[in-house]
Amino acid sequence: MKGGDHVQIQIDPVSAAPIYQQIRDRVVEAVAAGDLTPGDQLASVRQLAVDFGINVATVAKAYDVLRNEGIIRTNHKSGSVIARGPGTAPADDAFVADWSARLATLLAEAVAQGLTDAAIIERSTAIVDDFSARRSTSDTAKDSPS
Amino acid sequence: MKGGDHVQIQIDPVSAAPIYQQIRDRVVEAVAAGDLTPGDQLASVRQLAVDFGINVATVAKAYDVLRNEGIIRTNHKSGSVIARGPGTAPADDAFVADWSARLATLLAEAVAQGLTDAAIIERSTAIVDDFSARRSTSDTAKDSPS
Repeated sequence: MKGGDHVQIQIDPVSAAPIYQQIRDRVVEAVAAGDLTPGDQLASVRQLAVDFGINVATVAKAYDVLRNEGIIRTNHKSGSVIARGPGTAPADDAFVADWSARLATLLAEAVAQGLTDAAIIERSTAIVDDFSARRSTSDTAKDSPS
Repeated sequence: MKGGDHVQIQIDPVSAAPIYQQIRDRVVEAVAAGDLTPGDQLASVRQLAVDFGINVATVAKAYDVLRNEGIIRTNHKSGSVIARGPGTAPADDAFVADWSARLATLLAEAVAQGLTDAAIIERSTAIVDDFSARRSTSDTAKDSPS
């Protein structure tokens, strides 16, 4: 993901999730998986809108959310680049408090719907391990000469 | 929570989360914690709207979401009652797939914001354990003579 190559963002037009949310979510997942690392450049709002055949305002909204979250920063010279990722800086206390509350709600939903405690922990661990494994692979790919 | 006593639902008017979402989330959490169990009756839409000083449509929307999720069911005779909870039935495959995708996004957010893998797993485990402990306490309280 150095230089000109692009992370493929997939959007699902029939998903219940709004398109701007899907774009935001896929970028966050790409950062967690190490496919996007600090300094990596995102496509311009205009370009992404053309690529997906969607409204410029939809992409702009996704980028606004990512900017407010500190995941990307934008300037006139370099466009939008990834500003944060695993290892960049310790998580902010306010973020951790808010995120923990949202995690509690999401885990509560699984408990209420009949997942066992063991299944919930197993799923959480598998997801974290998967991102971690993908980051390692991503590092290796970046370190190797091209 | 048998009979007439009520689970206290707290809403936060300054939260970024819409009120209907907060009501839905608090009910789901109460089910996970065993404060609400299958058969328990919820306040009527009208009553909850009066209690909170909010629009009837807002409460109706929260109950609609809970009904679509299978957490509550409503009939003219008994009003809205809890229909699902831990141990009621195994989680539906479609639910698990959708929930896992949402969990992956939420955990990715924590990774991207700098939480360590260990901190994320620790937080997930603590939340699940807390709901489990509250369910045990809740059972004991229900079993004891009043």
